Amino acid sequence: MAELVFLKLGGSLITDKRRQETARREVITRSAQEIAAALAATPGLRLLVGHGSGSFGHFAAHRYHVRQGNLEDWRGYAETAAAAQRLNRLVTDALLAAGVPAISVQPSASAEAHDGVLQTMAVTPIRTLLDRGVVPLIYGDVALDDVRGCTIISTEQIMALLVAALRPRRIIMAGEVEGVYTADPQRTPTAERIPAIGPHNYAQVEALLTTAFGVDVTGGMLDKVRTLYGLVTQHRGLSARIISGRPPGAIERALRDPSAPLGTLISGDGAAASPAVGGR
Amino acid sequence: MAELVFLKLGGSLITDKRRQETARREVITRSAQEIAAALAATPGLRLLVGHGSGSFGHFAAHRYHVRQGNLEDWRGYAETAAAAQRLNRLVTDALLAAGVPAISVQPSASAEAHDGVLQTMAVTPIRTLLDRGVVPLIYGDVALDDVRGCTIISTEQIMALLVAALRPRRIIMAGEVEGVYTADPQRTPTAERIPAIGPHNYAQVEALLTTAFGVDVTGGMLDKVRTLYGLVTQHRGLSARIISGRPPGAIERALRDPSAPLGTLISGDGAAASPAVGGR
Repeated sequence: MAELVFLKLGGSLITDKRRQETARREVITRSAQEIAAALAATPGLRLLVGHGSGSFGHFAAHRYHVRQGNLEDWRGYAETAAAAQRLNRLVTDALLAAGVPAISVQPSASAEAHDGVLQTMAVTPIRTLLDRGVVPLIYGDVALDDVRGCTIISTEQIMALLVAALRPRRIIMAGEVEGVYTADPQRTPTAERIPAIGPHNYAQVEALLTTAFGVDVTGGMLDKVRTLYGLVTQHRGLSARIISGRPPGAIERALRDPSAPLGTLISGDGAAASPAVGGR
Repeated sequence: MAELVFLKLGGSLITDKRRQETARREVITRSAQEIAAALAATPGLRLLVGHGSGSFGHFAAHRYHVRQGNLEDWRGYAETAAAAQRLNRLVTDALLAAGVPAISVQPSASAEAHDGVLQTMAVTPIRTLLDRGVVPLIYGDVALDDVRGCTIISTEQIMALLVAALRPRRIIMAGEVEGVYTADPQRTPTAERIPAIGPHNYAQVEALLTTAFGVDVTGGMLDKVRTLYGLVTQHRGLSARIISGRPPGAIERALRDPSAPLGTLISGDGAAASPAVGGR
């Protein structure tokens, strides 16, 4: 049976966030090959891929305050858009080279945002591509905003809009970190991975991420967990998994096997307790 | 007063059509600098730029029969789209480097075609960019088609749709050839440039292009003249000029001075006879 999956390649995975416009080309190439292998092995798999902008978007966006909508300097908007497209160029070409029929779809070509929140974008081309077995490729992008002038729309925001329109079964977020931890694993050796988040422990996890970690350090993960938990509770039957894309084979395994015990599974309707999708 | 102009950089101008994916980088750079100079010198000028795909689009599109809608091989669609984006990457970066606040807008991200004819695409982002003094950059692209599966949409088709929505005053088509000629200037030394086409001579010019030239050789120019004449007769006050972008300064001059006697002026409402926009 056809199963629609959204896969995000995180900006922290495919770029070096500390250095401006530095792609991790070998990670991009390997991820593309794993996606190709998963598609070849799973005839029913329909896939939408998104990627973050990492160091390509952040520098220009930050310098020009694009997220807050700097109306004075449209060069910042143009340069942030161009940087996102340069990274997307590398990802698109890597997917094509690996044999994935990927079509890049520029979110800002049709997006409209209201005070930082994506309101609408063209979904018909994406739906049609999926129906025909093509892999639409979206990315974190700039967008025009009727309040701020302009803003940044994240891959998560775009995927959230597309979840409502396209109803995928699974979202896989492949980043740098091996899922959600009880503390910062880079600083706390005793930090433990939380294999599953669901109604049974969501409040506890949210409190942990809010208080036990510094806000600056883990704001990203807390936001991600909140957004994904919101999506899986709104859309029955949808689950999300946060994994690390760094170990070779992890992306392919997560795509092929919904129950592979990788990273952290987030689900809203008791699926986390079922052995088929257990996170242990 | 603000004047909206559409400028097309032809695929024959910015690429070597005989060689696959070969950009004429020096022409792209010079064109970008001329556009920047024209914008700097003309505060009221609002500009939308489009470019053809030349040798970037044609090879993959032809190999895979994308225009006719090859449903069997979606790799052709993906590769044609990626090739168009690779050329667009070069043009976008050249415009930014020259100081033009250009934003590339991918037509296929929102386009819907019906049997080879573009029906709709997202216009709101393009209008908003123009309102804010940014230069939207479009390009010949693939598109999904509800009859053929997929097709190719030319820059002219996209501009025709945008003419109706945005009402520019002028269209400038900068190609390889110095306007419309009475015969093929590369083969007939006595061929003369037709400085102006309007209601007074359109039928005559059309007959000339249909009969005196081989269809294969000049089909492109006949199509272009037909499309542009159709647009200028439908939209009162709109004129179009076909020029060569090869002589340095021609693009800048055409942008700055509507009455510069370059190439061939096409107009529909007697404007060709007026001294202000005369083509001689």
